Amino acid sequence: MRFEEHIFHSPQFESVVKSAVDFFNNTPVCAIPPLDSFMGGGVYALYYTGNYKAYVEAGVTSENNYLNPIYVGKAVPRGWRTARLTDLEAPVLYTRLREHAKSIELAQNLLLKNFCCRFMLMEEPESDLIVPVEAALIRNYRPLWNTLVDGFGNHDPGKGRYNQSKSEWDVLHPGRPWADRLTGISPKLEAIIEKITTIKM
Amino acid sequence: MRFEEHIFHSPQFESVVKSAVDFFNNTPVCAIPPLDSFMGGGVYALYYTGNYKAYVEAGVTSENNYLNPIYVGKAVPRGWRTARLTDLEAPVLYTRLREHAKSIELAQNLLLKNFCCRFMLMEEPESDLIVPVEAALIRNYRPLWNTLVDGFGNHDPGKGRYNQSKSEWDVLHPGRPWADRLTGISPKLEAIIEKITTIKM
Repeated sequence: MRFEEHIFHSPQFESVVKSAVDFFNNTPVCAIPPLDSFMGGGVYALYYTGNYKAYVEAGVTSENNYLNPIYVGKAVPRGWRTARLTDLEAPVLYTRLREHAKSIELAQNLLLKNFCCRFMLMEEPESDLIVPVEAALIRNYRPLWNTLVDGFGNHDPGKGRYNQSKSEWDVLHPGRPWADRLTGISPKLEAIIEKITTIKM
Repeated sequence: MRFEEHIFHSPQFESVVKSAVDFFNNTPVCAIPPLDSFMGGGVYALYYTGNYKAYVEAGVTSENNYLNPIYVGKAVPRGWRTARLTDLEAPVLYTRLREHAKSIELAQNLLLKNFCCRFMLMEEPESDLIVPVEAALIRNYRPLWNTLVDGFGNHDPGKGRYNQSKSEWDVLHPGRPWADRLTGISPKLEAIIEKITTIKM
């Protein structure tokens, strides 16, 4: 069997993902959460402009160009692909940004005003690009909270599951009340800071 | 805020997915499972050429052109997008086709020789198209076992979970030994057959 006949190549696809990343990097920089609510899903990035020591040392704070996110995420409308379109018209991306804003506000050593975001909405059929475009952004920028420091996007694990360990993010930025309930052995603050400041981004 | 500035449109993306579907429809038709094992993930379709009465009546059997699949599926290599590439070189699509062949062989009223398949392998970065291309194929062809008749792709639920109901597929095509262990109330055979033969594909 000649397997070449079964392998699909598409140079056009790479260029579509690249265009999406370019478009993303030219979307307006907004406050987090954005002032107005909006519907739909897509990808977003958070940028940090404050002076948390380890982040300044590691060089992960954003300059004026806002091209080095500290976190990249996606919000995919449920049912987007199955024709069971239950919440295509739900504010899934906006809601996610609000949750992130809440996590940052709760953190004792971060200020929400030192964060801003970009976001890009993708309707059908471009919504199929949400996953690959998020992946491309993470691959390109290796944002700190997606790579070295784990746990920013976590949710309250809920009753009966507090035997987990605190995430690195929660050790670094204490404040989320549910994280304080976790009883597992936490990673060491010093080890996390050393990791961040040693491996320059 | 002007949201248009945040909405990404890409006519090129639609054309990429269309090219992939066209390429797929021109891949060689193979026995299921294919004679030789092969590595990688992608999408596949099964075609039925037998004379199971309800399927003949519903017009879901394949003519010589093999353009109306009875089932479409995907096999996504784990870790394909996270740079934790653990099994990109695993035969995930081939393995899935073997599992399907086994299900069909076990069915008392189906013959494996009445099935054939197409498959399309997608390596990085095209592997990001696996999900949207599978979705496009299902949207285009509404294959019977993806739409009206549920359960072909199911696995043995395992010990402690046999209180589930039998799937429509397992009622229609009895044979998988684990399906016989399910103790939930099964859908009625007559109702399934009526559904298939009434709603012409």
